[in-house]
Amino acid sequence: MSDLKSAGPVNAAVIEDLVAASRILAQHGVLDAWGHVSLRHPANSERYLMSRARAPALIVAADIMEFDLNSDPVDQRDRRMFLERYIHGEIFRARPDVNAVVHSHSPTVIPFSVTDEPLKAISHVASFLAGGCPCFEISDVGLTVGLLVTNQKAGAALAKVLGDRPVALMRGHGNAVVGSDIQQVVHRALYTEINAQQLATALSFRRPIRYVLPAEAQAPKRLNDCWEVWKAQAMGAA
Amino acid sequence: MSDLKSAGPVNAAVIEDLVAASRILAQHGVLDAWGHVSLRHPANSERYLMSRARAPALIVAADIMEFDLNSDPVDQRDRRMFLERYIHGEIFRARPDVNAVVHSHSPTVIPFSVTDEPLKAISHVASFLAGGCPCFEISDVGLTVGLLVTNQKAGAALAKVLGDRPVALMRGHGNAVVGSDIQQVVHRALYTEINAQQLATALSFRRPIRYVLPAEAQAPKRLNDCWEVWKAQAMGAA
Amino acid sequence: MSDLKSAGPVNAAVIEDLVAASRILAQHGVLDAWGHVSLRHPANSERYLMSRARAPALIVAADIMEFDLNSDPVDQRDRRMFLERYIHGEIFRARPDVNAVVHSHSPTVIPFSVTDEPLKAISHVASFLAGGCPCFEISDVGLTVGLLVTNQKAGAALAKVLGDRPVALMRGHGNAVVGSDIQQVVHRALYTEINAQQLATALSFRRPIRYVLPAEAQAPKRLNDCWEVWKAQAMGAA
Amino acid sequence: MSDLKSAGPVNAAVIEDLVAASRILAQHGVLDAWGHVSLRHPANSERYLMSRARAPALIVAADIMEFDLNSDPVDQRDRRMFLERYIHGEIFRARPDVNAVVHSHSPTVIPFSVTDEPLKAISHVASFLAGGCPCFEISDVGLTVGLLVTNQKAGAALAKVLGDRPVALMRGHGNAVVGSDIQQVVHRALYTEINAQQLATALSFRRPIRYVLPAEAQAPKRLNDCWEVWKAQAMGAA
Repeated sequence: MSDLKSAGPVNAAVIEDLVAASRILAQHGVLDAWGHVSLRHPANSERYLMSRARAPALIVAADIMEFDLNSDPVDQRDRRMFLERYIHGEIFRARPDVNAVVHSHSPTVIPFSVTDEPLKAISHVASFLAGGCPCFEISDVGLTVGLLVTNQKAGAALAKVLGDRPVALMRGHGNAVVGSDIQQVVHRALYTEINAQQLATALSFRRPIRYVLPAEAQAPKRLNDCWEVWKAQAMGAA
Repeated sequence: MSDLKSAGPVNAAVIEDLVAASRILAQHGVLDAWGHVSLRHPANSERYLMSRARAPALIVAADIMEFDLNSDPVDQRDRRMFLERYIHGEIFRARPDVNAVVHSHSPTVIPFSVTDEPLKAISHVASFLAGGCPCFEISDVGLTVGLLVTNQKAGAALAKVLGDRPVALMRGHGNAVVGSDIQQVVHRALYTEINAQQLATALSFRRPIRYVLPAEAQAPKRLNDCWEVWKAQAMGAA
Repeated sequence: MSDLKSAGPVNAAVIEDLVAASRILAQHGVLDAWGHVSLRHPANSERYLMSRARAPALIVAADIMEFDLNSDPVDQRDRRMFLERYIHGEIFRARPDVNAVVHSHSPTVIPFSVTDEPLKAISHVASFLAGGCPCFEISDVGLTVGLLVTNQKAGAALAKVLGDRPVALMRGHGNAVVGSDIQQVVHRALYTEINAQQLATALSFRRPIRYVLPAEAQAPKRLNDCWEVWKAQAMGAA
Repeated sequence: MSDLKSAGPVNAAVIEDLVAASRILAQHGVLDAWGHVSLRHPANSERYLMSRARAPALIVAADIMEFDLNSDPVDQRDRRMFLERYIHGEIFRARPDVNAVVHSHSPTVIPFSVTDEPLKAISHVASFLAGGCPCFEISDVGLTVGLLVTNQKAGAALAKVLGDRPVALMRGHGNAVVGSDIQQVVHRALYTEINAQQLATALSFRRPIRYVLPAEAQAPKRLNDCWEVWKAQAMGAA
């Protein structure tokens, strides 16, 4: 591990958005005192960037570390690492189309993860969920630290369950969300939670539900507008 | 399009209230990072005013643009426009009594939009909903950008479903709310959401519900009191 | 009306607590942009004190007016008055033990007001509700301004339904809460809402509920501790 | 009582964390204007530390008092004490493994306390609840001040119901949560509430629930990360 060389410095604006992603998702209650956001290294697809182990609401640029796809650190120094970084490394390995990953304890996603009630899109803004969410059952792979994904084997099994989807539920734990960039993964992580809340309300009516059909789904093309406000609010500028 | 002439400058206090409307509805969670509020031009009923494409919580007076009822801009310059401005143009065309329109992803309205559970008033403050809300099904008109209303045809179909009502649900998307002025449309957009929350709770009791009867409905006559506090809080003065 | 004489000046600390009551209940979401808190005049039991018509979150000491039990103002000047002040006047007339009244659109109380699901205490802190809440049906008296209580007749009918209880629901509207002093009425208004929220959750389990028995009820003896924190937070001191 | 001698001064950082615990749990809505956190005296296992009677959000270091296991104060002076301090004294007496206790009106725990719906873990972060929560029925011991635990007998009965578990529900009242240190008891009190919220949602789906199995449970090993952010936010440093 110790002889890993960095894939090189990363543009400060890119790091700033990675930091903002954690702050935004913490501010919106998707990330609690745990959870993490990662970004594939812009200059080397075999590397990714993620904070040292720290609560998402407090992360600053200096906390960002570099990892290879085995989730070994490039330059650990005395920094503690997230136990569950294998979620990120194995998804980046399995999904070349993915450049950003969120793992969260998204509060209203957890109820869906422990029942067989499907989590599917009921609104346009969450239409990336029109195809539904597979659910990862960690006991199929073997427990290590309770239900946590703490090694490559468990991470790879999660990536396999995720397949080509945007979101996988993790039973009794939370979810893993992927995107082509930081803005998309933040949008998806946030609206997975919001759609779960809205669907729980719709289900309480005990009437047939009209889910968004896959043919009706279309991801927002421009996320700059929402990113502008989310980032401003999370970074204290609004 | 390019030879449209402005209907003239608008009083700064009027623009300020239009801006405040977006901020208020964002602060109360009715508008998320999208959605929009419009006002018919005080000097020309064939024109309306609406922000350039921007998150409602961040809108300032300089963002307000002028449109004709075809939803073509008077002076676009380099400003991006809301894709769904046709909601506003077509409602202003169809409803001479309407001077203000809100389109939102009102979170608790969406569950009602995807089931046949009626959204009707259960409290005096929302008694404008005593007659119920029609629901617009966009697939009856044809999808363009997913479930979004992105052209005149779809906007006109929505206006037709709205009819002479104050609120139309939009399936899997949100709602369109109209009023005779900015204060009324903000009150209606806010209490449509609040009534939806309260009705969801009432429905969970699984007992017969006593809705507000149309004969019992009466809109608040003076909205100055609520406007004072909503605006002060949204604009940072309280 | 115009020759009413004031019952005399009121201690500034008393007025401050009356103002704080509105601010506290607004901050906790019990009062929205409407609703009101009143206090029987310390020097004359035939008079009460209440704000001019204004959103509760914005009320200051200078807004407080004096009324007789007919709800006529002592010194109106150019101040607009709450249309529903008769709720207060008639309850003060009917209930000599009551020195403070709150009328609110308490959000989770409204669902109980439109069904026959009983609102009763499930926690010690709300044990004043152990005997249940009667519900006022305004159409038994006659509508005036929708469901609002806008005259002495309707106010007296509400007071009669309230009887000797601490809280009456008002169908499709909210509630009226009474207490022996400002601290007690604020505590009761707040915990009526909180108990309603908790009871709605308990009901959703569809299992028998163990309500607090009247024999188990005991009001908190000292409210100074909660008053200290509520007031500090609402008045900006904490 | 009056001749009790102090077990000695306590490190300021220890007191600071005890104060922070109240503030954190108030900020997250677990503690309302009542409730309390205690810590076994680091130098004498027969003593514990707890605030004088005051709302948790306002507590400062100077409010902390020392008590023996009979819940008699070491140096009362003119300070009012929590009526329910016997919860703490009797649990410390019965549970040598416990060094910190929280008593709260945890809002979503109360619905579980008044029905026989089991409160068990559905997520890893709350896996300390995998074994379920016993429920203390105070009328089995005898009412004194309503449902409050106001003497040693009631406190001892509660401690007996708690047994060797981390959390006991208190019917119609709240809960008692224990831990080996302040960080653990705060984590447990917070995630008991969050798990209750999530379980209520899961139950609303009316489908079989996959609870966390005892064999899958594993408490977070390092709570420093969450403590860092909770304390910073509650103490105003973030």
